[in-house]
Amino acid sequence: MKICAYKDIELREVSDDGADKVSIRQVITKADGAPNFTMRVFDVQPGGHTPHHQHDWEHEVFILDGTAAIETEEGTKAAPAGSVVFVPSNELHQFRNETDEVMRFICLIPNQD
Amino acid sequence: MKICAYKDIELREVSDDGADKVSIRQVITKADGAPNFTMRVFDVQPGGHTPHHQHDWEHEVFILDGTAAIETEEGTKAAPAGSVVFVPSNELHQFRNETDEVMRFICLIPNQD
Repeated sequence: MKICAYKDIELREVSDDGADKVSIRQVITKADGAPNFTMRVFDVQPGGHTPHHQHDWEHEVFILDGTAAIETEEGTKAAPAGSVVFVPSNELHQFRNETDEVMRFICLIPNQD
Repeated sequence: MKICAYKDIELREVSDDGADKVSIRQVITKADGAPNFTMRVFDVQPGGHTPHHQHDWEHEVFILDGTAAIETEEGTKAAPAGSVVFVPSNELHQFRNETDEVMRFICLIPNQD
């Protein structure tokens, strides 16, 4: 059984096109033996954002700290800490931090072959 | 896209054998269109615990509030808020609350057919 503090896992900058001021921790992955899905924790600094994009896999998200401004196909929605977000496959989305404090969220994806 | 506060989702008592003072919110499920895995949020009251059991699916866990005392096959481990836990399939486990405040955790499982 793996038990550790998420903060003890290496924080790496996300360099994907369209990402700005975003870092990621890969907290539970195939390398831990997870067969089906992967847990990541993202830090988004003030003014930062994930890519505005879509893809053929889903996201299951829990907002841990701060408030996310989520770009959806129906406009921007505020999601404060304690929000859960389900992004279906192929739906356009972006997580922005329009506040002065770090915004942090858990995001799970299915494992890809 | 589903966006809501986890606290707005119905809290139900867990009546499984071996569970005591445990409640669950099913926050992202097949009913939301989630094809691969399900997110639940558990509240464990002081003195409460989940069943001490094992099963053929894995858990991916994030401790949100309080401190979990986790029964593992190598003894009891303390997991404070901010801990991540991976419970492999078929490994014995139990989440106990030995403190005076609520212990709350996210737990994801693969969808079952």
